[in-house]
Amino acid sequence: MDEKDIINYIRSVFGKNLSFELNDDVAYVNDGDGFLVLKVDMLVGSTDVPPSMTPQQIGRKALVAAVSDFAAKGVSPDGALLSIGLPRGYKEELIKGIINGFKDASIEFGVELLGGDVNESKDLVIDCVLYGRAKRRVSRGGARPGDLIFVTGEFGPSKAGLDFLLKGSGLPDGKMKDVCVHAALEQSPPLPFGVRAVEAGLFTSSMDSSDGLAITLHEMSKQGHVKYMIEELPIDRAMANFLRNSNNDVYSAVFYGGEEYQIVFTCNPGSSTALREIARSLGITLRRIGRVEEGEGVFFYEGQRWVPVHDMGWVHFDSTV
Amino acid sequence: MDEKDIINYIRSVFGKNLSFELNDDVAYVNDGDGFLVLKVDMLVGSTDVPPSMTPQQIGRKALVAAVSDFAAKGVSPDGALLSIGLPRGYKEELIKGIINGFKDASIEFGVELLGGDVNESKDLVIDCVLYGRAKRRVSRGGARPGDLIFVTGEFGPSKAGLDFLLKGSGLPDGKMKDVCVHAALEQSPPLPFGVRAVEAGLFTSSMDSSDGLAITLHEMSKQGHVKYMIEELPIDRAMANFLRNSNNDVYSAVFYGGEEYQIVFTCNPGSSTALREIARSLGITLRRIGRVEEGEGVFFYEGQRWVPVHDMGWVHFDSTV
Repeated sequence: MDEKDIINYIRSVFGKNLSFELNDDVAYVNDGDGFLVLKVDMLVGSTDVPPSMTPQQIGRKALVAAVSDFAAKGVSPDGALLSIGLPRGYKEELIKGIINGFKDASIEFGVELLGGDVNESKDLVIDCVLYGRAKRRVSRGGARPGDLIFVTGEFGPSKAGLDFLLKGSGLPDGKMKDVCVHAALEQSPPLPFGVRAVEAGLFTSSMDSSDGLAITLHEMSKQGHVKYMIEELPIDRAMANFLRNSNNDVYSAVFYGGEEYQIVFTCNPGSSTALREIARSLGITLRRIGRVEEGEGVFFYEGQRWVPVHDMGWVHFDSTV
Repeated sequence: MDEKDIINYIRSVFGKNLSFELNDDVAYVNDGDGFLVLKVDMLVGSTDVPPSMTPQQIGRKALVAAVSDFAAKGVSPDGALLSIGLPRGYKEELIKGIINGFKDASIEFGVELLGGDVNESKDLVIDCVLYGRAKRRVSRGGARPGDLIFVTGEFGPSKAGLDFLLKGSGLPDGKMKDVCVHAALEQSPPLPFGVRAVEAGLFTSSMDSSDGLAITLHEMSKQGHVKYMIEELPIDRAMANFLRNSNNDVYSAVFYGGEEYQIVFTCNPGSSTALREIARSLGITLRRIGRVEEGEGVFFYEGQRWVPVHDMGWVHFDSTV
């Protein structure tokens, strides 16, 4: 029984009792005066912590993974609960480093710690719960034919950096390698950009990219019953050349990586100027990668023809219910 | 670094940034129109699951542990997020049993599943997040001299049952043994009682008992800066005799057990009739165990004299931040 089976089983068991969809980045609860927004995200030591990640970076990642979903939905997280499981005898410096990393990130993203618990477990487990409030809800499936497809940030470096950390080789030393390694160890979801864009009502749909670009685009395409046509890879030319020259598959790194913690969104063509202005004022890189059409599926324009993008990503055992 | 050290370290790190106390059963967020109430509780397979507990009971316990804190505060949980970590290759029947146990308990306590995630981890981890709303806040430290001390349910059987499950011996067969074993495997926090008592404003303080009666009384005494005088053990005479005759220490089982998931509360003497009436109408056992005086500490009337109750309980690595 893999994660998808488990999630489908949970949906089937709870289905009749559900008044909310379980297929969004966050849970929205309509309480008459807008929405209460909730999210839980579990970081597990044995599967989510690459070699050489510092304790501070682990604590940061535990918060950032949940913040990233809030960023995609344009919601400021107000408070957090922190539920920790630690192996017996876990070193004091590691514990303190994790707590401080979480603390620093909580200040960066304006999140207040409200409570939580500490437990013993065989694996390092850091479960981060966030809550906030939203005036409007942005779905994964709201795109209409004619909409433009954008992403924040860059895709590819985090996958290349992770591969390097796991294999210990594959990237020549230098500034570009450092960018890739940093992208694998320390992420910064564009929270203020998401909040301002959603406040202004500029997204027609959005989703956190951390399961990988291809999976994200497929999910948005399926939920919206529309076709996603990708014309450009969201990666700098210099970075693409660097990866190609060091024998990394650029296409795979961009589409089938994951853990970028960026926003994939669609908008009406008339909104793109306003969105670019918000991004510029915040120092956020925005890339238009394609457009939405009637139909289904995700396609990439490869030279002269459109080729289907596979619905797959970095195989990790972690997915939203 | 044990759990207390970790919790104290978290408090010291986040202290300056906190506007809420972290020493209550739940997190209360005052949002102008009452309180948003949040709680996270982590169940860990290697430390929280006794031998012979069924998958359904594991799923139930994951929810019940969090519901118990809501019951003590008189708050109906509205929704839950479920964050699961499963060892690779975990058996399908176990996974399905856990999910069904959680589902059945969610119906029993009127909690709707809103979302969550599924992950791979080396230990079984089920983190349950609850949210609800409260009109009034009940603290752990609100008791005043002259107040009466009550508990719901019975203390002692769950500890005796757990010892039996761990050792495989120590209790003779029969109905009383079955009661003890059941108390260790399947708990039922008195949620409707807590909700009605708090709606009527009848608690002056309250706390979930699941860390053990002695620890709970000490925490309430410390936070209230008052003395807790315990006159009676909250256990049936027949059960006490059964435990004594099978060489169990009744005093220890009552005070230093844990995981009863009952409510310890104080009230004004004038409220006790109304509280007994609510309990009677719900079929809940209520026991008056003592009274609050000026001073500090927790004492038990043992025959002719008052002896201090130690601030200790079942040693498990699990505590509220």
